[in-house]
Amino acid sequence: MNDNNKDICASFRNSEKIYVESDRFPIRVGMRRVQLTDSVIDGQRISNGSINLYDTSGVFTDPDVQIDIKKGLPRLREAWHKNDDNVEQLDAFTSEYTNRQLNDEALKPFMFPVVNLPKRAKKGKPFTQMALAKQGIITPEMEYVAIRENMGRKDCDSYITAEFVRDEIAAGRATLPCNPNHPEAEPMIIGSKFLVKINTNIGNSALGSDIEKEVEKSVWSSRWGGDTLMDLSTGAHIHQTREWIIRNCPVPMGTVPIYQALEKVDGKAEELTWEMYRDTLIEQCEQGVDYFTIHAGLLLEHLPYAAERLTGIVSRGGSIMAKWMKEHRQQNFLYTHWDEICDILAQYDVAVSIGDGLRPGSIHDANDRAQFGELKTMGELCLRAWEKDVQVLIEGPGHVPMHKIKENMERQIEWCHSAPFYTLGPLTTDIAPGYDHITSAIGAAMIGWIGTAMLCYVTPKEHLSLPDKEDVRNGIMAYKIAAHAADIAKGHPAAMERDNALSKARFEFRWNDQFNLSIDPERAMEYFGAERIKNTPFCTMCGPNFCAMRISREVSDKGRVE
Amino acid sequence: MNDNNKDICASFRNSEKIYVESDRFPIRVGMRRVQLTDSVIDGQRISNGSINLYDTSGVFTDPDVQIDIKKGLPRLREAWHKNDDNVEQLDAFTSEYTNRQLNDEALKPFMFPVVNLPKRAKKGKPFTQMALAKQGIITPEMEYVAIRENMGRKDCDSYITAEFVRDEIAAGRATLPCNPNHPEAEPMIIGSKFLVKINTNIGNSALGSDIEKEVEKSVWSSRWGGDTLMDLSTGAHIHQTREWIIRNCPVPMGTVPIYQALEKVDGKAEELTWEMYRDTLIEQCEQGVDYFTIHAGLLLEHLPYAAERLTGIVSRGGSIMAKWMKEHRQQNFLYTHWDEICDILAQYDVAVSIGDGLRPGSIHDANDRAQFGELKTMGELCLRAWEKDVQVLIEGPGHVPMHKIKENMERQIEWCHSAPFYTLGPLTTDIAPGYDHITSAIGAAMIGWIGTAMLCYVTPKEHLSLPDKEDVRNGIMAYKIAAHAADIAKGHPAAMERDNALSKARFEFRWNDQFNLSIDPERAMEYFGAERIKNTPFCTMCGPNFCAMRISREVSDKGRVE
Repeated sequence: MNDNNKDICASFRNSEKIYVESDRFPIRVGMRRVQLTDSVIDGQRISNGSINLYDTSGVFTDPDVQIDIKKGLPRLREAWHKNDDNVEQLDAFTSEYTNRQLNDEALKPFMFPVVNLPKRAKKGKPFTQMALAKQGIITPEMEYVAIRENMGRKDCDSYITAEFVRDEIAAGRATLPCNPNHPEAEPMIIGSKFLVKINTNIGNSALGSDIEKEVEKSVWSSRWGGDTLMDLSTGAHIHQTREWIIRNCPVPMGTVPIYQALEKVDGKAEELTWEMYRDTLIEQCEQGVDYFTIHAGLLLEHLPYAAERLTGIVSRGGSIMAKWMKEHRQQNFLYTHWDEICDILAQYDVAVSIGDGLRPGSIHDANDRAQFGELKTMGELCLRAWEKDVQVLIEGPGHVPMHKIKENMERQIEWCHSAPFYTLGPLTTDIAPGYDHITSAIGAAMIGWIGTAMLCYVTPKEHLSLPDKEDVRNGIMAYKIAAHAADIAKGHPAAMERDNALSKARFEFRWNDQFNLSIDPERAMEYFGAERIKNTPFCTMCGPNFCAMRISREVSDKGRVE
Repeated sequence: MNDNNKDICASFRNSEKIYVESDRFPIRVGMRRVQLTDSVIDGQRISNGSINLYDTSGVFTDPDVQIDIKKGLPRLREAWHKNDDNVEQLDAFTSEYTNRQLNDEALKPFMFPVVNLPKRAKKGKPFTQMALAKQGIITPEMEYVAIRENMGRKDCDSYITAEFVRDEIAAGRATLPCNPNHPEAEPMIIGSKFLVKINTNIGNSALGSDIEKEVEKSVWSSRWGGDTLMDLSTGAHIHQTREWIIRNCPVPMGTVPIYQALEKVDGKAEELTWEMYRDTLIEQCEQGVDYFTIHAGLLLEHLPYAAERLTGIVSRGGSIMAKWMKEHRQQNFLYTHWDEICDILAQYDVAVSIGDGLRPGSIHDANDRAQFGELKTMGELCLRAWEKDVQVLIEGPGHVPMHKIKENMERQIEWCHSAPFYTLGPLTTDIAPGYDHITSAIGAAMIGWIGTAMLCYVTPKEHLSLPDKEDVRNGIMAYKIAAHAADIAKGHPAAMERDNALSKARFEFRWNDQFNLSIDPERAMEYFGAERIKNTPFCTMCGPNFCAMRISREVSDKGRVE
């Protein structure tokens, strides 16, 4: 990492990295504790204590950990499963492609310096979080997310237990992606009864970006609050780019394997085969990808519906499979090989995110029979994945006007058996290229409130070009807002605590606390203005004669703040 | 205007200013017509025609009008009322303060170069749009807004007639602010059955900004899509700043007169008197302010409720009146003088926007008895204003979590008799200073969908500092999105047309049409990248091998675009 990025490893302002220990396992859960300053009212000093915040930045913000991008992050979860009898350490990679890449001298300059051999479930052993949950077993990962969701609190009404986590996973209502080959990732959970999560997308394309930039974006994504990360690279050195990202990624990481498969056949969709797709899946499972988007729900019989649309198929994966089906006049091979896919995923506890190849690409196409036809098939595939103990996410739209959002959620719950919904926005209008983080944050907040478990972010560059680092930041912030607004509307008590602490700080002119509790302290301080960061007992909007809050304090006999 | 601002007067790309003429009056309504390029599919050229867009930029984008900020805009509506028997031309200003300002040599350098003497209703004559509507009269203003809302279309299902406009105004469900002393403004209408409107706030404070900058922001506000504009200045030369803005403002303009009144008593709220407030109202009526925010609903008996709050009173006007009441132990003088206030406003057809001095300043305080206690009083004041034929808006919150938004709208409709609701956001979380245009666009879109008529924008600098020009732009765009998303969800057919046209352009790689139809063409083009603005048949996100839309066209037999 170059010097420009040393901020990634800086502590948050007035915050410390704390670890909450488990009573059940020798594990500890990292959080950010914000120390608040005292209120000084009528000369009296009153402590405001501290507040714990959910922290996705991993050890990047732990001053006791030395970060070296070339070595990768500490392999946290390896120690948890040292004596695990269900898993075996392989002595070579299973994927042909991986082995070819490893032996290609020309690729050496792009390769990650350390090679970690893969782990895999032993034959016939229960291995995935779902398999274990169904057997009533609580794993360290389940315990971890329970502590994490509570933000270290133990005594509130809505205290989340590891038993509850286990039961939600067993029922398929929650997914905990944790490939043992990505032990650097801290466990997190995706389900409607937990905090709403956000996913960020990064990735190079044939037209731009390189490995270093992608790693930089991925690390900033976690720092800024991304709960999961998808690498959607389609350009050169996909395999190597992914390796660098995974080894430095403290959150679960997803991909769309068909993108890499298509690169392997030089972009000729008709040349895709099940065999090479299968090898790609194994390649990525053994690298440590935690969840795959697989467009298996788009069937031959849906294609005529897509032809009726204003904007056809806008999903890349969907259009690739549509092209393959059309050329071969055969059913989607991801659908016909679904059971084999699930067998592979179960061996590595890779979750499947069933892709919505027919998500609407315009307000006009929302909730049409193409979209809902596919959704029904996705529900069928979901049940079959659960039979193999594979954890599931269901991907959702897309472009949906506000009045059609609720129907999406209701049908998804019904047809997909309460599997976690994972939506891209939705965008509530098509007319704002350049601002689609906002058009979609509106839809994301609404659908998050009524049950969507994870929101896939959209950046301001959506529809226009690839996001740079600042776009990633703006996309994340819009989605942290949507997710948090949804958590509040859902009544999550820990969510509301942060708002109350920030608002109290605002009313008492504790500017630093206001910044430190905000989703982007650096941005808030930048807008406030460096020279003003003093104890000014009024805001610049009003000026000294007009400060509503100062007058309000007087009128309400709330005392004079100092 | 300096050279940096000549873009304000540039035409929109591929657009012309068109005027739709009335059959009823010798008036014409300006709109923006976007000429679309042809589709070229399988070598065949197919016209896409043109599309009319609602245009708030006034004559700034009419190449036939020479703009000179020092002369002000053409006085459009003066000609409409030349022979109006209800109105009289005064030969001097009525306000003492105005006359003192005019005669103060030291203020000459700040004064607008042209003095326009005021007009006022003749005694006992029906004059306001509401008075005329109640008599069954259709005014040129009503006809204007009917044509404007239809965007020049005459044959659609939801065609809005001037009769309908009149009836909505007569019932109080819609407000058409049009002070005859601001004849530069183009009529527009605020009501739940019309397009959702947005208001922008500008204004200098004791700590920043100056006249030139405020005029620049006000003109850009109209250019970017602000439907109304409030000048919230509290600093030096309020009277002169306002004059410059009004004379160059093609949209209705509002103020909060108590701000200026407080400046006149050097910020000492306890020294405010009804007499000097009254003179301030008349001063501003005669300058041409189109609507006043008046915090008359906040009563002495509400103050104990505010003391219970986390963030007390966050409305500037509210806190000023609270302080006055507390010092004098008397009822709010705006409440006790309500009938006199309405008599003044009726003489100039200035609408009243009843201010919510007790709007919640935090999620914690939303929907509490302070807020709803005031709302009930506002409903009472609304009826009394209507008795005097004064048009009304009801101001609303503020900070409200998503699950409490609906209750706000329902109570407002019930208690305020369907008077147009005009909300500030609401912000759906408190934790995002620096991004409050987004926290609030979420709430604004939702409340707009269920009936709010006008959305007051929030900029990214809210809670932190005064907005600059770029902040005004970002605030406006977030609110254009919220309003448009609401129009779509409400089923407005003209709104949906624009989305469909843009999405069709997107699917056919007509990039220029996509930019021109977007809410901010310059931003979209900037993100797309100047060197790429050619006919590239794929997006940079995907690269040539991955273009979902290109593949989708092939699969759907939609033909090859060129």
